[in-house]
Amino acid sequence: MPTISNRGGALPASPIRKLAPFADAAKARGVKVYHLNIGQPDIATPEAGLDVLRSVDRTILEYSPSDGLLPVREKFVEYYARCGVGVAADEIIVTAGGSEAINFALQSCLDAGDEVIMTEPGYANYISFAQQVGVKVVSVPTSIDNGFALPPVAEFEKYITPRTRALLICNPNNPTGYLYSRAEMEQIGEIARRHDLWLISDEVYREFCYSDEPYFSAMELSGLEQNVVMVDSVSKRYSECGIRIGMLVTHNKEVRAAAMKIAQARLSPPLLGQLVAAASVDAPESYIDAIYDEYISRRDLLIAGLNAIPGVVSPTPRGAFYTMARLPVDDADRFCEWMLSSFSCVPLGGSVPSTVMMAPGSGFYTEPERGRQEVRIAYVLNKGDIAAALEVLARALEVYPGRVG
Amino acid sequence: MPTISNRGGALPASPIRKLAPFADAAKARGVKVYHLNIGQPDIATPEAGLDVLRSVDRTILEYSPSDGLLPVREKFVEYYARCGVGVAADEIIVTAGGSEAINFALQSCLDAGDEVIMTEPGYANYISFAQQVGVKVVSVPTSIDNGFALPPVAEFEKYITPRTRALLICNPNNPTGYLYSRAEMEQIGEIARRHDLWLISDEVYREFCYSDEPYFSAMELSGLEQNVVMVDSVSKRYSECGIRIGMLVTHNKEVRAAAMKIAQARLSPPLLGQLVAAASVDAPESYIDAIYDEYISRRDLLIAGLNAIPGVVSPTPRGAFYTMARLPVDDADRFCEWMLSSFSCVPLGGSVPSTVMMAPGSGFYTEPERGRQEVRIAYVLNKGDIAAALEVLARALEVYPGRVG
Repeated sequence: MPTISNRGGALPASPIRKLAPFADAAKARGVKVYHLNIGQPDIATPEAGLDVLRSVDRTILEYSPSDGLLPVREKFVEYYARCGVGVAADEIIVTAGGSEAINFALQSCLDAGDEVIMTEPGYANYISFAQQVGVKVVSVPTSIDNGFALPPVAEFEKYITPRTRALLICNPNNPTGYLYSRAEMEQIGEIARRHDLWLISDEVYREFCYSDEPYFSAMELSGLEQNVVMVDSVSKRYSECGIRIGMLVTHNKEVRAAAMKIAQARLSPPLLGQLVAAASVDAPESYIDAIYDEYISRRDLLIAGLNAIPGVVSPTPRGAFYTMARLPVDDADRFCEWMLSSFSCVPLGGSVPSTVMMAPGSGFYTEPERGRQEVRIAYVLNKGDIAAALEVLARALEVYPGRVG
Repeated sequence: MPTISNRGGALPASPIRKLAPFADAAKARGVKVYHLNIGQPDIATPEAGLDVLRSVDRTILEYSPSDGLLPVREKFVEYYARCGVGVAADEIIVTAGGSEAINFALQSCLDAGDEVIMTEPGYANYISFAQQVGVKVVSVPTSIDNGFALPPVAEFEKYITPRTRALLICNPNNPTGYLYSRAEMEQIGEIARRHDLWLISDEVYREFCYSDEPYFSAMELSGLEQNVVMVDSVSKRYSECGIRIGMLVTHNKEVRAAAMKIAQARLSPPLLGQLVAAASVDAPESYIDAIYDEYISRRDLLIAGLNAIPGVVSPTPRGAFYTMARLPVDDADRFCEWMLSSFSCVPLGGSVPSTVMMAPGSGFYTEPERGRQEVRIAYVLNKGDIAAALEVLARALEVYPGRVG
């Protein structure tokens, strides 16, 4: 039998999904699993998005253009205009989720052997995408002890080498929930400007900012119009992760031309998802407002609950719907697996044995050791479920054999 | 401004799609364009596939598992059983079209710097996918003069080096329409066996075999159960290219494990497409039969018509719905662009000026010069349109300034 590629073998397992077989086994034993591991909101998709399916009158579900259907891109132009970001339809390439947009951005801007700088802990899949195309991820550490704040410019610059070609940011941040202030964004812009770097900005959580300041997009940084490549997605905004519609947005015509070659090789983005996404842009303001208030109250419940568990520490995130929490355990990978394979309890007012699935922190670090005591928790469930999950977690920590501190 | 990646800049443009701006301009001038450039059938998607959308009762369009929904994979297992290929649901990973499956297969089986052997002319996007992940395509030439037949084993073996790790075949072939006999498949298997190579087999045109022999899948080659990675797609079979549903199928657990890491990084395949694809598997046999008869008559019309044009040569393909034809022109890239930008005529019985879009042959070769006089033509339009397109092509060749021979 031929040998598997080193690349395939060496790719990091997804911390968000790698424990799925343990969760499946728990469910097969009749255990209820609270999924705090993945950013899959329990919020309904906008009715307008579902209606477009129910009334589909096409007879052939055919390829769309490689950059997406023009009317769909025009809808996104409308949306960005409402966000204060001026882009044209031909500056948008519709992709199979934000995931594909990240892949396109990395491939268009960096060669194999080049380096991209990101803060750490960072979105685990960035590391995988970079590795797939031979790009090296260089991580600037941030710490739970100051709420994962952006390190000063001088600290960032220590990591720049002759091979550095891009900064990759995620704002609001997945996994930490950190939200950059406008001043911090200007700092990041200053680094990109000074070293002439690409600035790849993942803004899929734009709507989820729990702050009084308006959201400030990397696309608004002046003098960087040609450096910024924005990654976006409708997944979280409209609770339609499954349709796989994201986008790569840039004013830079060379990046677009390179990305279009990759886009053409894979032929086209999903047709049906495009129809749903475009209709969702017209969701009433009340849809977004209701979600917003709901997430703030979920966050408040979760963070207070976590910090009330002895030995658990979580900053209060101001964006997205995740937090990175520190747990009093020997190894969060082991603990998360143990929760699924060896622990369950019936929470107060419940009737079924239950457990909690979380994403072990190690996978969000290029050096897994740094995240051994951390987990990423997504607050995508309703408050009743979050309360139950918190209770289950607290009880699990009381009896976990590898408890420390 | 930072410089674009060499990779992005150097990727080949898609021969199938690169002339799209010229086609758009022609349409804007009121010219009707017959699209023979792309394998987008004009056949209706099965009603069952469309009904599943009309009756969708989900309230959240959520992520599916990274390898696809289990009931969907179980449907595909049923389908393969009908084809005489025995696979289990956990040997299938659902992908965003056959395109993503090719990418997963290349990455799982080959490292950067490794070589994959394919016959040439070959599917253009293979070259792009290989280049994206640093895999070198080594081409074994086939010739229009003997209908693009498989070269003898000894010829293949000349191309094997210490870096060769895989053979990549497409059967029936895109772009040539060549269909391997069982004996030829055994030959290919013999090479893979003798040199312990991966055999990546793209079988998306399985239903389109115009031969009395039953289709023989690479999955049926004995002794190669651990070497074969099958790429498949519902796009052509059910005329639903836009839903982006393909699959990677293998008995090899290591390949699956590596591919799953890549699959998890991009989270999940399109949800809606999966629902449509699974329902399409239940399309009545009459659906496939009607398509089959239609394509044979289209092929016969096209090939006879092409060979009747002075200076044009086309073999008679026995599979898929493409042919590679040789034209009496200086440069088929130039000719195809000229057809869109500088030529139109009103075909007999028609009323609007019309032209034809074809895919220039150069893009199907690693050395573009080899394909300078060839074009790929897809017979995906109804016979009236094919007849009109043939007439337009014949009249264009009469007046094309770069005509040779």
